[in-house]
Amino acid sequence: MSTATSSTHTTDVCIIGAGPVGLFAVFELGMLKLSAHIVDALPEVGGQCTALYPEKPIYDIPGFPAIDAQDLITNLKAQAAPFSPTYHLNQQVTHLKKRDDGRFDLITSTGTHINAGAVMIAAGCGAFGPNRPPLDGIEAYEGSAVHYMVTQKDQFAGKTLVIAGGGDSAVDWAVALAPIAKKIYMVHRRDKFRAMPESVEKMNALAAEGRIEMVVPYQLSALHGDGKTLESVEVAALDGSKLSLKADHLLAFFGLSMELGPIAEWGLGLHLSHITTNPTTSETSVPGIFAIGDIATYAHKLKLILCGFSEAAMAAHAAYKILRPDVPLHFEYSTSKGVKAA
Amino acid sequence: MSTATSSTHTTDVCIIGAGPVGLFAVFELGMLKLSAHIVDALPEVGGQCTALYPEKPIYDIPGFPAIDAQDLITNLKAQAAPFSPTYHLNQQVTHLKKRDDGRFDLITSTGTHINAGAVMIAAGCGAFGPNRPPLDGIEAYEGSAVHYMVTQKDQFAGKTLVIAGGGDSAVDWAVALAPIAKKIYMVHRRDKFRAMPESVEKMNALAAEGRIEMVVPYQLSALHGDGKTLESVEVAALDGSKLSLKADHLLAFFGLSMELGPIAEWGLGLHLSHITTNPTTSETSVPGIFAIGDIATYAHKLKLILCGFSEAAMAAHAAYKILRPDVPLHFEYSTSKGVKAA
Repeated sequence: MSTATSSTHTTDVCIIGAGPVGLFAVFELGMLKLSAHIVDALPEVGGQCTALYPEKPIYDIPGFPAIDAQDLITNLKAQAAPFSPTYHLNQQVTHLKKRDDGRFDLITSTGTHINAGAVMIAAGCGAFGPNRPPLDGIEAYEGSAVHYMVTQKDQFAGKTLVIAGGGDSAVDWAVALAPIAKKIYMVHRRDKFRAMPESVEKMNALAAEGRIEMVVPYQLSALHGDGKTLESVEVAALDGSKLSLKADHLLAFFGLSMELGPIAEWGLGLHLSHITTNPTTSETSVPGIFAIGDIATYAHKLKLILCGFSEAAMAAHAAYKILRPDVPLHFEYSTSKGVKAA
Repeated sequence: MSTATSSTHTTDVCIIGAGPVGLFAVFELGMLKLSAHIVDALPEVGGQCTALYPEKPIYDIPGFPAIDAQDLITNLKAQAAPFSPTYHLNQQVTHLKKRDDGRFDLITSTGTHINAGAVMIAAGCGAFGPNRPPLDGIEAYEGSAVHYMVTQKDQFAGKTLVIAGGGDSAVDWAVALAPIAKKIYMVHRRDKFRAMPESVEKMNALAAEGRIEMVVPYQLSALHGDGKTLESVEVAALDGSKLSLKADHLLAFFGLSMELGPIAEWGLGLHLSHITTNPTTSETSVPGIFAIGDIATYAHKLKLILCGFSEAAMAAHAAYKILRPDVPLHFEYSTSKGVKAA
């Protein structure tokens, strides 16, 4: 494996998305002697499996009664490795254009150019990002006083924080930051939290000690400050009554939203933010561009990793016909060698 | 797991074929709280994986850079086990009929009756059996003097054998039986063998010692005997010249043929000995009957175990709609729990 940065490359297939299905596509292409470059916006391969729930066991991967998401990714990367894919991480494909010669030009956000004979979009739910609460002027505070994830705990030492949300992320961070923060206000629109009972108990214990102040049921209603430094967070009860919480930071955990991003602008047939495909070839409305995994849709589509694996195999075989039109594929399935013939 | 013999049963789904795809169907049905009975002609689950090449590594199961066929089966059986399928082994489904109430009656070769709400045919290549050489009256000798597989080596001790075929089975058995047989004639239509070079070398060494007599290039042309006890095997060269080999047994290894068997008579849409299906539901031309894995066919079908897994998932979801028409499926895919929401 090699990891490339800004540069120009030529390959049989460019795969967009290095989640489990994209990684398995490398293997299927490799079995057909087709080369692959693979682009992902995240700093590591694995997609959601690695970024969101690496230690979560998955139960429906065939042949694994249970496997942790990160272990699945490690295995898939090893399975792809013999075919030496080139990974382009930390960058998003922003431009995709069909060339006059029928191939494709792809350009990424970091300036990597890839000339590919076919494209496979394995982008999962698309680029995923945090749900932003609908507060006037919130963008101005992002990166300084408003946060949707915690990358550096230390910046909150000795500060007053408003943590908003009712799920695991909100509760877990309230518990984790309570020892170092000056004060934490916990804002949630209900008094019941949808988080691990054990974590909720810890939060309640910290509230009883006065380290966390529960502000429930309240919702965020406004931010006050100079547009960079936050002074207070205004919250509203259901009856409209308001409170002003003096705070240095707002940490808002309202889950992730999925969006197609630049993919939506490539002229592909779409249905409800998914790319429509031929279910037996995974080809999109544009010949030579395939979509596999959760981002693809067709009648009765199931968003299962195992179905994405099958789509990757089908797309690889369909791409082969485009890329090697004059070389008939001697297709021998993996079990046929076991049937001994005289 | 329970193993049943002749009796009467009622279940949500009857799966025909306990190979890897049939076993995974049990898991997918179980995830939807649908019960399964599974019938197989072989004495053990695993289909070809177990019967033909248990120690052969498979390289294209997603997440396994390599896994021996038997290990895959062991894992799939463990994955299905929590859903307590009932296995009906050593029996073939000989009759399948739609009932007036829309369900199905299945009867096996050992008299087991199964009343199922839906049927999934995961029969691989169908019932597989040895290719029989086209010799007049050969059936009469089967079971006594003519053999297509070796189950009891001892019966060949001190006997003169004709072994026919040019693949691994023929060569391996010639090598294995040479120490105990009185004499072995090795008959093959070419002088080149399609077997492991190492095995061919061993055979040639035994031939040099006089323990095996090579009769190449010759083909079987007739059997002589009383219809039970064999006296001689007649072989012919390409120019028509013949030899008579005095022998007690003929062991013919001409590979396996696949046939649909009773399945061909159930009124299902077929194409070249495969069952035609809707590629996104795996449903056959008969509502409520599904076909998954190698036996199913549709445009661009790939005979890959991993595609069969996906078909099993699609069939399970489609069967759910038939079996639980009034219970909407709250479909949560295995990764969704990792996306934390407030």
